[in-house]
Amino acid sequence: MNDKQPTLKQQALDYHEFPRPGKLSVESSKPCFTAAELSLAYTPGVAEPVREIDRDPETAYRYTNKGNLVAVITDGTAVLGLGNVGALASKPVMEGKAVLFKRFADIDVFDIEVTAPSVESFIETVVNIAPTFGGINLEDIAAPHCFRIERELRERLSIPVFHDDQHGTAVVICAALINALELQNKRLARAKIVFLGAGAAGMATARLLKAMGATDITMVNKAGVLHKQRDDINEDMQDLVRETADRTLADAMDNADVFIGVSAANALPAELLMKMAANPVVFALANPDPEILPSVATQLRDDLVMATGRSDFPNQVNNALCFPYLFRGALDAKAPQVSQTMQIAAAHALAELAREPVPSSVMEAYDVTEMQFGKDYIIPKPFDPRLLKHVSDAVFQASLAEQAEQDKKLG
Amino acid sequence: MNDKQPTLKQQALDYHEFPRPGKLSVESSKPCFTAAELSLAYTPGVAEPVREIDRDPETAYRYTNKGNLVAVITDGTAVLGLGNVGALASKPVMEGKAVLFKRFADIDVFDIEVTAPSVESFIETVVNIAPTFGGINLEDIAAPHCFRIERELRERLSIPVFHDDQHGTAVVICAALINALELQNKRLARAKIVFLGAGAAGMATARLLKAMGATDITMVNKAGVLHKQRDDINEDMQDLVRETADRTLADAMDNADVFIGVSAANALPAELLMKMAANPVVFALANPDPEILPSVATQLRDDLVMATGRSDFPNQVNNALCFPYLFRGALDAKAPQVSQTMQIAAAHALAELAREPVPSSVMEAYDVTEMQFGKDYIIPKPFDPRLLKHVSDAVFQASLAEQAEQDKKLG
Repeated sequence: MNDKQPTLKQQALDYHEFPRPGKLSVESSKPCFTAAELSLAYTPGVAEPVREIDRDPETAYRYTNKGNLVAVITDGTAVLGLGNVGALASKPVMEGKAVLFKRFADIDVFDIEVTAPSVESFIETVVNIAPTFGGINLEDIAAPHCFRIERELRERLSIPVFHDDQHGTAVVICAALINALELQNKRLARAKIVFLGAGAAGMATARLLKAMGATDITMVNKAGVLHKQRDDINEDMQDLVRETADRTLADAMDNADVFIGVSAANALPAELLMKMAANPVVFALANPDPEILPSVATQLRDDLVMATGRSDFPNQVNNALCFPYLFRGALDAKAPQVSQTMQIAAAHALAELAREPVPSSVMEAYDVTEMQFGKDYIIPKPFDPRLLKHVSDAVFQASLAEQAEQDKKLG
Repeated sequence: MNDKQPTLKQQALDYHEFPRPGKLSVESSKPCFTAAELSLAYTPGVAEPVREIDRDPETAYRYTNKGNLVAVITDGTAVLGLGNVGALASKPVMEGKAVLFKRFADIDVFDIEVTAPSVESFIETVVNIAPTFGGINLEDIAAPHCFRIERELRERLSIPVFHDDQHGTAVVICAALINALELQNKRLARAKIVFLGAGAAGMATARLLKAMGATDITMVNKAGVLHKQRDDINEDMQDLVRETADRTLADAMDNADVFIGVSAANALPAELLMKMAANPVVFALANPDPEILPSVATQLRDDLVMATGRSDFPNQVNNALCFPYLFRGALDAKAPQVSQTMQIAAAHALAELAREPVPSSVMEAYDVTEMQFGKDYIIPKPFDPRLLKHVSDAVFQASLAEQAEQDKKLG
């Protein structure tokens, strides 16, 4: 190895350490150099916005950063591919998430790493600090306690609460699937869909697809198909268990139109790919190694539309396509929650954008001369600057419409 | 009123609202524009520091912002002069504190406003989120629960926990008093000291003065002198109750060398000032209106050294002289706590700096042509850039010495 070329590992460590540790800095967004300025920022001037907010809590959105501030909160139990590393070791990931929020949607993020003695304690902690924030992004929290945490927080808080590993992933997969089915000339309502992996991401995606009109979804986990006769399936998953004679992945894959893998490397054998219907869709999203390599799959079947979780293959399913813009729209709309309607709006907006002509600046950013809707381009690229307006607006409008309807109902 | 001259109230509200709400923004401190940079900031590169911290938790100080990140935490129960406005309405003050931390000591702050159903719940919340931070600054929390909160947090956490309203105030008062006594040619160990106001700030200051050698301190609250025969004094204050025949403020003020008021406007009658010993020290720190106005007091006694809490009178006792630098020193020393020794070091450093010649740049910042140690200049000015090095270094060295001694004890 060349001494002047540090390894990728060393590059990553150096990036985090120098010139100063970490990736975030908190800056004053207002001038604060003179005594006069500080007398506005702090005593005595600061008493005025305090009085206003005391009088009308809504004015916190006018006088503080609350309306642009998201907490990225984790307990570090399911970090990346690394598993349960705990709160402290997850901090670089949460700071990284904050970098993405800022970079793509100009949202301020406090990363909050929580060590709680119990799920109840974790929930109470988030509820207690919630006045600080305009939204809560839950991150890298293991199943099944992530479900309860999100459910209870949504019930107890009136700001958006969003578990990105579930719903962010779901939105991007759904967007990609809308376009993949369009290319394959199939309809979501009739497509036979098989999930391999029934974790947080798989379940959330299956539910969002159902809400969008999918009717034929079979979930498969390590023990086989989730069917009604199984007695090892916990409550959280009951709505995804189906009446079927299928027992194995092989059974389920027979004539399937869509395979969505959120499981493990090489989990899809070639012979099962061959059992799929004509013009199939294969999303092999396990990271870093997919359920089947695109090079292998496309050689076996040239009628395929495929996506993975990797940036070095076409059609990367990347959460960064969703969460910054979904929160931007939700915050701007002062949405009381991230509803399924808002998620579906985000998915459709992403799908639509991929069908638009791509500006040359985006192609330049990716160093390619061609980028147009087709088998190798079914979802936008993360560095496409059109995402901000396009996706955020769709979410914003969906929330406003929903809030108006809610107001009408309440008379 | 001239239309073009907004009121101070409107200026303060505009400052907070425009061009965007609030006073803070969270920025990426590392380059994050290209895909290559983001692959270091987030997946896959971020896995490397995660693994390092998982292996050795201390490396969180190398690879994350933890070591420069302080939480300014409140429940909003004792905000400025405004009282119990609650968590949300206190946010402008906490953001303002963050601005000061950044402006004076380049420390990053997350302001955290907490609504907790109980003191236990508040404490648990802070303990749970503590992995995120390098230090905890408690702010504007009412007595007496502020005492229990700080005590338990200090026991349970191994990062600095500091209630600024108590100890920050104490450090600055002690610094000013060291110099006032020097000017009056009195010794702390022999000075007869009277406190009016036995709240959080008064008690913390009395204790710090005792630790520095004061022996004759009488605390007075609304009900009179804190003496041994009173049965209305709670446990938190027992160490400050004394055996004495004095019952009233007037009794205590007889021949007193030092009066420290942390009480209310006009609480010190002129006749009591006249009862003090020759060359007295009067700190009238009630805000915005002091216990006695300097114009009144100095007319009555020309042998006086006086300080207030106001920036428009000489000798402003201002917390901003302490907390940024105390935390800078503590963070840089990776202090496991803010010890009394560190606080005393900060007080002495502040006192010393006021006795140094003042650079012309500082005088220019305050638009004066003379600023030198004397009755009208017993503590440094908040915009003195020498504070950072001078005070932080003293705290840093004190902590290192203490940690070394601790290590020696542990063998």
